[in-house]
Amino acid sequence: MKADIGLIGVGVMGASLALNMAEHGYRVAAHDRDFDKMQGARDAAEGMSGVIEVAEAPEALIAAIRPPRAIIILVPAGAAVDAIIAQFRPLLSEGDLLIDAGNANFHDTRRRTAALEAEGLAFLGIGVSGGAEGARRGPSIMAGGSPALWGRVEEMLKAIAARHDDTPCCDWFGPDGAGHFVKTVHNGIEYADMQMIADGYGVMRDGLGMEPGAIADVFESWRGGPLASYLVDITAEVLATTDAGTGRPLVDLVQDRAGQKGTGGWAALEALRLAAPAPAIEAAVAARNLSARKTERTRLEAIFGPAARPLGDALGTEREAVADIRDAILAGRIAAYAQGFEILRAASVEYGWAMNFAAIARVWRAGCIIRAALLDDIAVSLEAAPETNLIGAPLLSEMMRGAENGLRRTVSAAAARGLPAPALASSLSYFDQLRTARGTANLIQLQRDFFGRHGFERLDRDGAGLHGPWA
Amino acid sequence: MKADIGLIGVGVMGASLALNMAEHGYRVAAHDRDFDKMQGARDAAEGMSGVIEVAEAPEALIAAIRPPRAIIILVPAGAAVDAIIAQFRPLLSEGDLLIDAGNANFHDTRRRTAALEAEGLAFLGIGVSGGAEGARRGPSIMAGGSPALWGRVEEMLKAIAARHDDTPCCDWFGPDGAGHFVKTVHNGIEYADMQMIADGYGVMRDGLGMEPGAIADVFESWRGGPLASYLVDITAEVLATTDAGTGRPLVDLVQDRAGQKGTGGWAALEALRLAAPAPAIEAAVAARNLSARKTERTRLEAIFGPAARPLGDALGTEREAVADIRDAILAGRIAAYAQGFEILRAASVEYGWAMNFAAIARVWRAGCIIRAALLDDIAVSLEAAPETNLIGAPLLSEMMRGAENGLRRTVSAAAARGLPAPALASSLSYFDQLRTARGTANLIQLQRDFFGRHGFERLDRDGAGLHGPWA
Repeated sequence: MKADIGLIGVGVMGASLALNMAEHGYRVAAHDRDFDKMQGARDAAEGMSGVIEVAEAPEALIAAIRPPRAIIILVPAGAAVDAIIAQFRPLLSEGDLLIDAGNANFHDTRRRTAALEAEGLAFLGIGVSGGAEGARRGPSIMAGGSPALWGRVEEMLKAIAARHDDTPCCDWFGPDGAGHFVKTVHNGIEYADMQMIADGYGVMRDGLGMEPGAIADVFESWRGGPLASYLVDITAEVLATTDAGTGRPLVDLVQDRAGQKGTGGWAALEALRLAAPAPAIEAAVAARNLSARKTERTRLEAIFGPAARPLGDALGTEREAVADIRDAILAGRIAAYAQGFEILRAASVEYGWAMNFAAIARVWRAGCIIRAALLDDIAVSLEAAPETNLIGAPLLSEMMRGAENGLRRTVSAAAARGLPAPALASSLSYFDQLRTARGTANLIQLQRDFFGRHGFERLDRDGAGLHGPWA
Repeated sequence: MKADIGLIGVGVMGASLALNMAEHGYRVAAHDRDFDKMQGARDAAEGMSGVIEVAEAPEALIAAIRPPRAIIILVPAGAAVDAIIAQFRPLLSEGDLLIDAGNANFHDTRRRTAALEAEGLAFLGIGVSGGAEGARRGPSIMAGGSPALWGRVEEMLKAIAARHDDTPCCDWFGPDGAGHFVKTVHNGIEYADMQMIADGYGVMRDGLGMEPGAIADVFESWRGGPLASYLVDITAEVLATTDAGTGRPLVDLVQDRAGQKGTGGWAALEALRLAAPAPAIEAAVAARNLSARKTERTRLEAIFGPAARPLGDALGTEREAVADIRDAILAGRIAAYAQGFEILRAASVEYGWAMNFAAIARVWRAGCIIRAALLDDIAVSLEAAPETNLIGAPLLSEMMRGAENGLRRTVSAAAARGLPAPALASSLSYFDQLRTARGTANLIQLQRDFFGRHGFERLDRDGAGLHGPWA
C-alpha cells in the first residue's frame, strides 16, 4: 500500500506535522538522515488511523509514495532546501510535486517554482504557523503556487489545519511565493505585537514598579476582552511561571537579549522595497537588534544613568495606568495589522498575486501565533473594503477612537520618563501621520528642490516639477 | 593636446563637475548624446585655465583622452550606467579606468568592479554629494575601489572637492562599493535630519501656531549654534521665501507629498540586512512614503478629526518651546549620526572594507548636504573610539545630556497632542533603548521559547538554549 504523501525532514516541526496527518488517517512516508527521529515519529503514530512509515534511503521514499507524488519538505530554510531539491530531483517523475513547508524567503520560492516548472516538476511554497504545537494539533496554513497543484493537496492540508468556527485555517493566496510572503508578513506582525506587549510589560515593570506576578494577572485579565489573543495568553502564562530552582519568577532570571530567525526582518525589508510604511514592524526588528547590544547598553547606562524612571501619577492610579496600557496595545495592534495588510496590498500589485485579503485574515484566526479576537473584525473590514487602510474601517476606527487616548498617554508618559516603548511609539506616529491631511512634507519638498532641483507640486496650481526662485 | 580626463553625461551634475575641473586647470573631454548640453558646458568654460572639449562620437571621446584613460560617468544610476559601460567597453584599452560618479547602489558597484577587473579594465565607484552647486563649487567626494586606481585620480578629485580648514573633503574608504556605500549612509542621515527638521517645523506650525516667517527666524537664529548646518541654513531660507505670484509664504503653497530617489531607502535596507538598528532613518523613509498617501490621509482625517492640536503651554512659553525643539533636533541629530556610523561599522566588517570612520566624518564636513558643525566633534570622537556607539563619546554624550530633556519634552508633548514627530520619536526610542541596561527582551525570549522552543539564556547561569517548564 503506497503512502498518500512523503515527508522529508523529521525534526520537531516535521514530526508534529506527520503525526497530525497520521491522526487524520493519512499514510505518510517519512525520510530523514536521522533514523532515530523517523523511528520516534513512527512509534508515536501507533494506534492512529493513519501510519507513518520510515524510508531510510531517498529511493525508498520515492518508491513508497503513490504517484503522482506529493512530498513535503520541512528542513531549515535556505541552502538545505536547495540541497534537498538537488538530491531528489533526479529521482522524481513528471508531475511529482514538492512542497516547501518551511520558513522560506518568498524570493527563493519564486526562484524554485520557476526552476522546477521549467523541468516539468511541480512546486508549492506553503507557510505554516503555530510552532510545534500548532503543527501537531492544527496549524494555520498559507499556500502559494499554481492553483491546479494546490487542488492536489488542498483536502489533506485543510484536514490537518486549525479550525475557526469549523472553517479550516488553510487557504491558497496566489501563485509562486504568495504563501511564503503571507507567512513573512504574519511574522512581521508577530514581531510588532510581541514588542508592543513587551513595551507594556516594561512600562508596568519599570514605570509602575509591578512584580511579574501582578503583571501576569493584568495579562490574564485581558484574555476575555478585545485584546484576547494567543500572545496575550502565553504572556500571562510565562510571566506567572516560577523558576523551580530558585523559587523566583522565571522572567526575572532571563537574559534580555532577543534572538530572531530573520523572518520579521524580511517583512521590514519587503515593506521598504515596496514603499509600504511599516514603522511598528521596523521598530520591533530594531528593538531585537538593540537588545542584542547588551554590552553597549550597559556601557551607555553607566554614562547616562538608567533611563527607566517611575511614572509616578503620570498615568493616574495603577488601575488607570493599566487601562491605558491595555488601550495602547490594542490601538498599536490595529496599527500593526494595518501596516501588515498595506505590505500585502503592495506585494499583491507588484507580483500580480490578486490576493484575497479577507481570506488571509480568516486564515490567521486560529492555529497561528498572531491569532486574535481582533481578526474577526479585520476579516469583515477587509471583505467590505479590501483596498483601503484598515485603520479607517468602521469597526476598527471605532475601536481606535476608544483606544487612541490610552496609546497617546502611554507613549507620552513613557517618553517623558525615559521608558522605552519603541513599537507603541511607532504605531502612534504611524496613526498620527495617517490621520493628518496636511503634513510637513511641503518643507521637505522645498529643501529637496533647493539642493537638488527635484521640483515640487503646488496646492493652488497643477503641474509637477515646479521650482523655487533659487533654481 | 590630449585631455586629462573624460566625462560621459553632461547633465546638470556632469556640466557642473566639468566646469569645476576646467576651473582648476584640467582639460576635460565631454561626451553626451545631447550636443547642446556639451556645447553649453564648453562655452561656459571659456576663459578658465582649463578646457572643456566636445566629443560627439564615443570614438572621438576615447581618442581625445591621454592614455591610460580616466573617464567619469555621470548618468542616472541603474541601467543607464550598465548601458554606457557596454557601449564603451569595446573601445577601451587595458588599464583604462571608468569612474561611476553617480548615485549607484553599492551592490551594483561591487558587481561592475568585479566584471570589469576580470576583463583587465579598471573601475572606481565614487559618491559625490552637494547637488549641482556642490559639483560646481566643490562637492564632498567618497571614493571606493582599488587603492592603486584611486591614486591615479586622487590629486584631481581632491583639487575640485570642497575644503574644510583647507583639507579637501575627498577621500578613499575601501575597495569596490565602499564609496557608494558611504554615500548611501550619507543620504540616510540626510533623510533623518530633514525629517527631524520637518518634525520641528510641524510642532512650531501646528503646535505653536507660528507663521512661516517666524519659523524661518527660529532656524535663522540656530545658524550660529550647535545646530549650525547646511540643512538648517536652507530651511531658514526656504521658509523665508515668498511666492512672487501670490505674495504668500511659498511653503504654504507647496504640496506635502515628498519624493525620494531611493538612496535613503537603501540605507534603511542595508541597515536591516546588517542588523544595524537605524530607527530614525527608517522613520524618515516611512514618513516620505506616508506623505505620498495624501488621499488616504485626507480620508482618515475626515474620520478621526485633525491630529494636530495646539500645544498650549505644554512646553512653556513659545521661547521655551522653541529651545526644547532646538535641543530635540540636536539630540536627534546625534542619534541619527550614531545610527549611520553603526551601519558603516557593520558594513565595514561584513565586506572587509576596514573603513576609517573618522575620515568619513571629516569628508562630510564640507560640500555635502549633511555638512554640520557637529561633524567636528564626531570626527574627534571617532578618532578616539572608532568601535563604540557615538552617543557614548565624551563630547557627544555631554551634548546629549544637555539636549536630552528637550527631545524628551518635545516628543512627549507631540505624542500627547497628536502632532506627528516620527523621526524625533524614533531617535528618542533609540536613545532610551541604548541607555537601558536591563530591557524587556527577557519577556520576548520566554514567548519565543514557549511557542517555538527557541531557548534562552539566564542571568544566573551560563549556557544558551535553556527552556521553560513548558518545553
